[in-house]
Amino acid sequence: MVLASDSRTNAGIDRVSTFRKMFTFERPGERFFTLLTAGNLSLTQGVISLIGEWLETDDPEKDLYAATSMFNAARIIGRALREVHKVDSGYLQQHDIDFSASFVLGGQVRGGKLRLFQIYDAGNFIEAMGDTIYFQIGEVKYGKPILDRVLRRETSLKDAAKCALISFDSTMRSNVSVGPPIDLMIYRRDTLNRAFTIRLEEDNPYLQELREGWGTALLNAFHTVGHDPGWVL
Amino acid sequence: MVLASDSRTNAGIDRVSTFRKMFTFERPGERFFTLLTAGNLSLTQGVISLIGEWLETDDPEKDLYAATSMFNAARIIGRALREVHKVDSGYLQQHDIDFSASFVLGGQVRGGKLRLFQIYDAGNFIEAMGDTIYFQIGEVKYGKPILDRVLRRETSLKDAAKCALISFDSTMRSNVSVGPPIDLMIYRRDTLNRAFTIRLEEDNPYLQELREGWGTALLNAFHTVGHDPGWVL
Repeated sequence: MVLASDSRTNAGIDRVSTFRKMFTFERPGERFFTLLTAGNLSLTQGVISLIGEWLETDDPEKDLYAATSMFNAARIIGRALREVHKVDSGYLQQHDIDFSASFVLGGQVRGGKLRLFQIYDAGNFIEAMGDTIYFQIGEVKYGKPILDRVLRRETSLKDAAKCALISFDSTMRSNVSVGPPIDLMIYRRDTLNRAFTIRLEEDNPYLQELREGWGTALLNAFHTVGHDPGWVL
Repeated sequence: MVLASDSRTNAGIDRVSTFRKMFTFERPGERFFTLLTAGNLSLTQGVISLIGEWLETDDPEKDLYAATSMFNAARIIGRALREVHKVDSGYLQQHDIDFSASFVLGGQVRGGKLRLFQIYDAGNFIEAMGDTIYFQIGEVKYGKPILDRVLRRETSLKDAAKCALISFDSTMRSNVSVGPPIDLMIYRRDTLNRAFTIRLEEDNPYLQELREGWGTALLNAFHTVGHDPGWVL
């Protein structure tokens, strides 16, 4: 499983900041969860804080370390989100601010499968299965075409990571609300440990290589494809 | 100048239809305008109808054939949109429907320059100049990265047309609200005549060639770019 997140948040173009949007909760050898966040920062931080407070309570309906399955873990995220909604949504409404917070949750509980969920604003969620092998949250459209073209069930972890980075690069070029550093996590099924994580700053050599290389490769691709249609202009 | 539009409209997934979104108004040798539309079909059709009714009235504030410049032509589109807004927006609001209608206007009046405008819902507009050499309206995000990578001031008309078609293909793959046929128009500066127009149906050989070729070329590009980052996973 490959998870990636940028770290730009903005509340208007003069309030741009860097915040991590990737959070890992783990008990090595027993369970491993990574959560990605998108939407209103005050809400997603609220959810993360609440989940943190619920840890070690041994309540399987609230404590990620007590959840008996990935499904239950996803319900805990949804429950935390609904708690935040209960407290904040009325006040946000008074200021015409949409309640917007969504999550990707990936992970594994010992004895269960590696599973991937997307949790919506309302706390409901869906799971990746069948042909759906990835989820995106936040500013998703610019970076979607490359994912659709490249990702398959048989794609290697390294290629999936490369594809995620190129997808982020496409988005960052077209939209200033997404920006580095990029947090990248690669988890290998059944290891039940944080596998590989790296924070790629703007000047990271691999990120720069992809960035420049992809621009050139795309232009070459553009010029090789298609015969002259013979249009008389 | 290259203009392209798809022809899918939808009002919910069970109300998908084909409508032209490209309209040309011309007096050969004297003036040439092409208008692309996006947004609520009842509104954009209303604008097109109104513009049609205003033709031949000799009123330079309403009649595209009497407009003395491209700037005045863009104001006429904005004026028609505001008329439609005056009539319909209150009723739409009662049904919680956003007033959404936007336009791209490209063209030339004899003695003036070839100019390109984007007209917003409120009837205000901006003009392409400097580094801004293209406009998109409607479902714009999926198809933007390829335009940003390829289009330059010096790009040939044929390459610009190819790029527009690949951009539409990326969008059509990722979003069902955009679909063929694609209307494509290529206008050569100072000709003051409709230059070249073609409607590309789904089975058009050039469109198919781009479609399949682009998928393969992109995958090849993906595999050539970037060295192994040496991550130990």
